[in-house]
Amino acid sequence: MLQATKVLHTINSSQDLKQLEQSELAQLSDELREFILQSVASTGGHLSSNLGTVELSIALHYVFDTPEDRIVWDVGHQSYAHKILTGRREMMPSLRQFGGLSGFPKRAESQYDAFGTAHSSTSISAALGMAVASKVKGEKRNVIAVIGDGSMSAGMAYEGLNNAGVDKSIPLIVILNDNEMSISPAVGALNRYLAKLISGSLYGATKKGLDKMLSYTPPLREFAKRLEGHAKGMIGPATIFEEFGFDYYGPIDGHNLEDLIITLENLKKIAQTDGPQFLHIVTKKGKGYERAELNPISYHGPGKFNPSEGLKPSAPGKKTYTEVFGEWLCDMAKADQRLIGITPAMREGSGLVQFEAQYPDRYFDVGIAEQHAVTFAAGIACEGLKPVVAIYSTFLQRGYDQLIHDVTLQNLPIVFAIDRAGMVGADGPTHAGVFDVAFLRCLPNVVLMTPSNQEDCRNMLTTAFSLNGPAVVRYPRGSGVGPEASQKLETIPVGKGVIVRKVKNAQAQGKKIAFVCFGPLVYNALEVAEELDATVADMRFVKPLDEQLLLDLANTHDALVFIEDSATQGGAGSACLEALSTHKIQIPTLQIGLPDEYVEHGDINVLLDLYGLSPKKILAKVRDHFQI
Amino acid sequence: MLQATKVLHTINSSQDLKQLEQSELAQLSDELREFILQSVASTGGHLSSNLGTVELSIALHYVFDTPEDRIVWDVGHQSYAHKILTGRREMMPSLRQFGGLSGFPKRAESQYDAFGTAHSSTSISAALGMAVASKVKGEKRNVIAVIGDGSMSAGMAYEGLNNAGVDKSIPLIVILNDNEMSISPAVGALNRYLAKLISGSLYGATKKGLDKMLSYTPPLREFAKRLEGHAKGMIGPATIFEEFGFDYYGPIDGHNLEDLIITLENLKKIAQTDGPQFLHIVTKKGKGYERAELNPISYHGPGKFNPSEGLKPSAPGKKTYTEVFGEWLCDMAKADQRLIGITPAMREGSGLVQFEAQYPDRYFDVGIAEQHAVTFAAGIACEGLKPVVAIYSTFLQRGYDQLIHDVTLQNLPIVFAIDRAGMVGADGPTHAGVFDVAFLRCLPNVVLMTPSNQEDCRNMLTTAFSLNGPAVVRYPRGSGVGPEASQKLETIPVGKGVIVRKVKNAQAQGKKIAFVCFGPLVYNALEVAEELDATVADMRFVKPLDEQLLLDLANTHDALVFIEDSATQGGAGSACLEALSTHKIQIPTLQIGLPDEYVEHGDINVLLDLYGLSPKKILAKVRDHFQI
Repeated sequence: MLQATKVLHTINSSQDLKQLEQSELAQLSDELREFILQSVASTGGHLSSNLGTVELSIALHYVFDTPEDRIVWDVGHQSYAHKILTGRREMMPSLRQFGGLSGFPKRAESQYDAFGTAHSSTSISAALGMAVASKVKGEKRNVIAVIGDGSMSAGMAYEGLNNAGVDKSIPLIVILNDNEMSISPAVGALNRYLAKLISGSLYGATKKGLDKMLSYTPPLREFAKRLEGHAKGMIGPATIFEEFGFDYYGPIDGHNLEDLIITLENLKKIAQTDGPQFLHIVTKKGKGYERAELNPISYHGPGKFNPSEGLKPSAPGKKTYTEVFGEWLCDMAKADQRLIGITPAMREGSGLVQFEAQYPDRYFDVGIAEQHAVTFAAGIACEGLKPVVAIYSTFLQRGYDQLIHDVTLQNLPIVFAIDRAGMVGADGPTHAGVFDVAFLRCLPNVVLMTPSNQEDCRNMLTTAFSLNGPAVVRYPRGSGVGPEASQKLETIPVGKGVIVRKVKNAQAQGKKIAFVCFGPLVYNALEVAEELDATVADMRFVKPLDEQLLLDLANTHDALVFIEDSATQGGAGSACLEALSTHKIQIPTLQIGLPDEYVEHGDINVLLDLYGLSPKKILAKVRDHFQI
Repeated sequence: MLQATKVLHTINSSQDLKQLEQSELAQLSDELREFILQSVASTGGHLSSNLGTVELSIALHYVFDTPEDRIVWDVGHQSYAHKILTGRREMMPSLRQFGGLSGFPKRAESQYDAFGTAHSSTSISAALGMAVASKVKGEKRNVIAVIGDGSMSAGMAYEGLNNAGVDKSIPLIVILNDNEMSISPAVGALNRYLAKLISGSLYGATKKGLDKMLSYTPPLREFAKRLEGHAKGMIGPATIFEEFGFDYYGPIDGHNLEDLIITLENLKKIAQTDGPQFLHIVTKKGKGYERAELNPISYHGPGKFNPSEGLKPSAPGKKTYTEVFGEWLCDMAKADQRLIGITPAMREGSGLVQFEAQYPDRYFDVGIAEQHAVTFAAGIACEGLKPVVAIYSTFLQRGYDQLIHDVTLQNLPIVFAIDRAGMVGADGPTHAGVFDVAFLRCLPNVVLMTPSNQEDCRNMLTTAFSLNGPAVVRYPRGSGVGPEASQKLETIPVGKGVIVRKVKNAQAQGKKIAFVCFGPLVYNALEVAEELDATVADMRFVKPLDEQLLLDLANTHDALVFIEDSATQGGAGSACLEALSTHKIQIPTLQIGLPDEYVEHGDINVLLDLYGLSPKKILAKVRDHFQI
């Protein structure tokens, strides 16, 4: 089915696309939509967002001179149509697999990918930088940022708008792809405002804007007529985008190819003379595939499925860490009324669906606004309540200063439940939570825990909640291999690790080795330890480090191997080296963790092996390093 | 002169203030303003901003039930009047000195300091957190965020507004203290918009707002009259603050105590019933001290001075690192047209005044918007130009995710000129740039340099500019003791350290020690090395680390001492320990750097000694650790 196309298979570049008659474009969009559905169903990946941007992608490459003109796709999980149209159609079966196409725009992958994205709300800043550079260099070029309404809730988008709007000599086009969603339903005052714009209680095309559009020719009359259809009146308040210095157009139907093309053709010219332009289009997530239209959240990032049958409930298996957190949150909230749950737009991803249902008054989705999430929690903690901030490891990078300046400096009791710590697989380097150990353990007052299994994860969350300062529990994507979590709310001793395997036959050994482990790779270490008859410690805490246990291991073994699923540079092993130095212990050591490079996307087991973290590779590395 | 007050000396709390007749408040504000001037002139500190908030501080504590009501001072460098009125008048001579008053609000200092601030734009998020917590707890309380127009350019403020505006049950009051400044003149579309509001081409008090105000009684008629004076008309567009869900009032004169008190008294009631309120007041930086009014930037943060004479030009001395950077930037820009200079609202602090004057087309002040600054630079770098981002160490924390996701992952050639690295003295823990080594060295592709003197700083900047990937030069506040910078544009070998002192009499020594130094503390190490006859290496690069030099030192010495002016946890010494582990070297080591606690404010030499970084303390630590 992926091959049976009349038009799509002829398109391998923006130039090919321009050869088509406009009448062929409707056919193309049908074929492209079907191709995306079949392709994602067979590989897994992002679906709803990509079905929503079929027409926009076609229109952009039809109108603009890409790659000479630059398109920056905010977040980028809506860029499949763009990829398919720009020479990567045949590589789609490799999507998100090791060595294959990235699930996001990636500069190294194609000259059409003007800017790598994945985290939200970077597009306006990046596009403005490109447009400014072109101006400084004297090059005439259009730069287009495509940003979703969800992404507009992040402060970074505002910073970009605030800077872009002041210079009328910058031909920047911002396209707001408004589908009333981030991944969860969009929240915040701006999104309420956008809804008002769409509903027509305000109206988009201002008189000024319309006049300007009309002063350009191609299919003039039609365009004017169409635009008038959208504009409910001609005198009225300026939109906030106009207050920010943009000309504002819209809202227009983002699935109407003809409208899109005419509008973009006009904007292309206007931007060169009048500076920053803002186009508001309305699209539907999941467009054209009814199951996804009805349930865009479930079809946001599905695994493989049969399009004619839709998603099947997954077979019950081990609980994911996300589920463990979600259950703990409800149980803890029941036990302690002070608990407040906070998510920056990741209700589903972080496992807060049940919590919201049960405790709506204590649930806060702040939108994609990690900076605010952290300081909002700090304000809450000042008043004696106990916030739990559920956040992905790499998204916490957005709130790093707030974590330092507002939380740890003031030593406020907040629990950070960090999901997607360590490698994440198909999402790749932008989502791999590999720096958190390094950037967190340098902060005074932080308690930093690394559960190796679901049971410990739950106990650590309870422990974190019981503390009187900032406490972080970082846990990986997916489910673990260790014991399942209980239903209890039990704490564990702070700063204490445990020995999970002891050397059995000390006499028989050449070298007595202890594995000093942080997080779920303890299970890989256990496999290796069987082979080597080594000791294995699950340290549980990066900070405070169980120095006594570390020293005991150092004093009773010939070598120490530190194992973690985070960056080796400044990581947990590094903390152990520091402690050994402080305590004047000299012993052969080996750090095993992620190397000093960005993690590729792909199957997590492939990656574990690639980066030397599979049992086999760990064993080989230990043998090599210690010559045993 | 500080004692000769009629009213001020009777005020030690918000309660005392409420005992005054309104007629006495004018006298109080005169005395308070004079007290601040004399006090700051005798201690140094922030002046312009504090002279601007005298009336607002009086009005807030007069009207609200502080500390039960919460005031969050954004940035907090305008909180001196607040401190003086709330029991800390007599401690003002200790301001910003070790053990004395902090220059910023600090929770540990007073119950009136509801939230510690110093970095910009946190106030709305924190205040919203407090207001939400009060609601959840069923406590009736007003929470007030006081934020400057400069701080409004940061995305974080927008994230706060976006979240605050949606819930009409939250009695949050945001006061925009508009003085058309951040530290440098304010930039961006929002500030242009605010200027329009002030100029009256838009007008503040909407009909709806006015009606609401009028429905409250106390001194009703006068208030209505006054408000009408400000409002140029009664029907008109809603302000963007209203679009965000706030009721908007203003702009009103922030130096008119009577207006302020009436307005705040009304807002206090309205907020409890109608939710989020936004009051726009206009103040003058430096108000009441003519020299500061005329030159608010020079008087932003002066040292000690004689108020009757004003600031004197400082005696020519060694150039500061900031000046070294500023001169390099101009010279490099002259030599290479690709150079683009970017500052997030720190033109003066980062030394870009000359650059702006000489290269206005290549100078970009993006406002307080560190996230945007970094990704804007990334966009520019994609187009082949060479951005130099000048930023303080602690403010880079705001752009951390952008540095990872947009810059280092894409390996874009951008120079980060990081000022205020290491300890900063009087500004204290919020401004101390002590985590950067840890949070930067874990990132792949980064080149990280730590100059120990002005000459190296210049050469490293040139080197950074010559590289084809992200490069960071971190340098301290103030001037160094080493050689001055040349006028040349010379590079140094990447990843190569230098030995700056060799052991003289190897035979005579008990233990042969090498100091492995990063940054300006190399000069303290040199002093200690004279005493111990030790080797001293200036490593210059944290990343890539000069492993060969490190191994050579390890192989020819009995012990290594790592010295840095940053957090020991995950710091440069930690990088050395990792390298030794990798290369299977066992040797006694000692890390000397900042301990695992937040740095106090105070004189930098006091702090160096306190944290064990003075030559004397280093010597003692080395002797103790190695028993020599």
